[in-house]
Amino acid sequence: MTASLDRLVLNMPYLLFLGEETNPIKAKTAYGLYDWSVENCIGQTRLPGGTIDLGLAEMAPAEAAAAGARSLVIGVTPVGGRIPEHWSRVLIAAVEAGLDIVSGLHTPLESVPGLAQAAARSGARLVDVRRPPDNLPRATGKRRSGKRVAMVGTDCALGKKYAALALARAMRGQGIDADFRATGQTGIMIAGAGIAVDAVIADFIAGAAECISPDADPDHWDLVEGQGSMFHPAYAGVTLGLLHGSQADGLVLCHDPLRTHVVSWPDYPLPSLPVARDLYLQMARITNPAARLVGVSLNTSAMDEASAQEALERVERELGVPAFDPLRSPLDRVVASIMG
Amino acid sequence: MTASLDRLVLNMPYLLFLGEETNPIKAKTAYGLYDWSVENCIGQTRLPGGTIDLGLAEMAPAEAAAAGARSLVIGVTPVGGRIPEHWSRVLIAAVEAGLDIVSGLHTPLESVPGLAQAAARSGARLVDVRRPPDNLPRATGKRRSGKRVAMVGTDCALGKKYAALALARAMRGQGIDADFRATGQTGIMIAGAGIAVDAVIADFIAGAAECISPDADPDHWDLVEGQGSMFHPAYAGVTLGLLHGSQADGLVLCHDPLRTHVVSWPDYPLPSLPVARDLYLQMARITNPAARLVGVSLNTSAMDEASAQEALERVERELGVPAFDPLRSPLDRVVASIMG
Repeated sequence: MTASLDRLVLNMPYLLFLGEETNPIKAKTAYGLYDWSVENCIGQTRLPGGTIDLGLAEMAPAEAAAAGARSLVIGVTPVGGRIPEHWSRVLIAAVEAGLDIVSGLHTPLESVPGLAQAAARSGARLVDVRRPPDNLPRATGKRRSGKRVAMVGTDCALGKKYAALALARAMRGQGIDADFRATGQTGIMIAGAGIAVDAVIADFIAGAAECISPDADPDHWDLVEGQGSMFHPAYAGVTLGLLHGSQADGLVLCHDPLRTHVVSWPDYPLPSLPVARDLYLQMARITNPAARLVGVSLNTSAMDEASAQEALERVERELGVPAFDPLRSPLDRVVASIMG
Repeated sequence: MTASLDRLVLNMPYLLFLGEETNPIKAKTAYGLYDWSVENCIGQTRLPGGTIDLGLAEMAPAEAAAAGARSLVIGVTPVGGRIPEHWSRVLIAAVEAGLDIVSGLHTPLESVPGLAQAAARSGARLVDVRRPPDNLPRATGKRRSGKRVAMVGTDCALGKKYAALALARAMRGQGIDADFRATGQTGIMIAGAGIAVDAVIADFIAGAAECISPDADPDHWDLVEGQGSMFHPAYAGVTLGLLHGSQADGLVLCHDPLRTHVVSWPDYPLPSLPVARDLYLQMARITNPAARLVGVSLNTSAMDEASAQEALERVERELGVPAFDPLRSPLDRVVASIMG
């Protein structure tokens, strides 16, 4: 039972379920929630053998519910992305304690034996965040109030989510009314709301994007997580529909300076940054003629400090807007650029 | 029960069901089939009061089946797009005679009382052409053999389907091995195969397009029906994914010279033809670096002969490729341009 209208809205705070996981790479969702939404995580629960430890209070589902938790979030990815049978005991205990279950795994929660029945009895929701709401509207193209910055990129998986999260955090730190807007599963768990746009029916991509960043106060800023790339041979349709529906005032162009080709697609070279900028601005201006480039986000995680600094300076000279790495740069100059 | 893999394939020839329709506008599907696929239509069947007459032999479903028909195609659109209850008798008679039912209406055929059971008994299929196959692959981006021409446009609903149909017919008339490839419901019925790309999950748009125009002989040409427009605030994602997956060698840019704005979207002006050409070429070259503009299709249906001719000549001077109206121009020059 997902929300039936517009974007999903999750019930916070969370109890993080870490299973019997021992490999931190399989716990990326949990670490992401800890890094970006710890104020909404009131505890962790593990199964025997589990060694992942976020340092949160250890709680059984009933204890977490008593302490105010409203959802158990599956924070680890089991082998094959399927929910193991032996997890059903703790998941059923959670819904019996009144907690929603929130999952980004491929197995639908309703397929866990007994879980749907237990949820029906307690009124808890089973929320598969990959699954979009049922009755999304088509886009209207009507301008919405408030301001929006869209993350766009030269490829998938180069930091668009982190750029949006870091900018939202930096802007709020300056007292600016700003929200991260999620368009993928991990982002939705962090934000507590959103739509997995890549799972939407094609006719409704831009309509979903309109729901993700709704009308807001004139001084409010949405930082919209991007998906894919206009230069990607498989996923560009998602990228373009999301950009159109976002009606972006500002674009942040996200890039990895060490990447030369679409990741896993060696026959597809990445565009130059000026080519990417020009195309994204042209497309953004279809739904918002005032769209402008406000910054460039570089993923320099594989570079030493000196190389990273050199890359940031080079890009800044080339494009004439602040360049930053969302995980290592100060963000005051790009925030100033956003605010115009 | 739609096909479970890749594009839908319909069973021909057809018996056209015209219901009790009296309004030719509500029989557009039937007329489209008559105009473009009459060799696959062996009869028509009507209900009392119906006045639409294609001049085909009048046949009850059992007679049509005996004469070789393999599907009954619903060729009219009832009010609200829903299948009226009183149609169920003839639809059930058709599946009992072994005919598949092919529908482009919103009501799923399985919702017609008794129809699914009758189909299960006879082995007939209920094919909702709006519904894509269940297990589409993601795009691979791998170059396919054979040649492809994609119809792209400045807007929706300005003749992209007719351009592809007319070009396929003209090329076959010259002995060229060519196929119309359908991406929308009426086109699928005409071609007897295809996928409604706007109904596909967003992540699979380009993958669906790859299935629609599969590997073919080196001298084979696919004429791919286009959808939407890169300049459309709601549907551009479909357009771009379809273009990328089509790996077009040639583009035909489709336009209506009298249209100044996106139809039904008065706040969205249409692009100039050179702007549209440049954007579509840039995007087509992501998956096929050799893509080139081969022609411009103008919908001049609302213009007199002299104005139409003037518009065609003006566009031809502006873009330097043959301009044609698929329903009133000779097509030899554009076919020559396609063949390079």
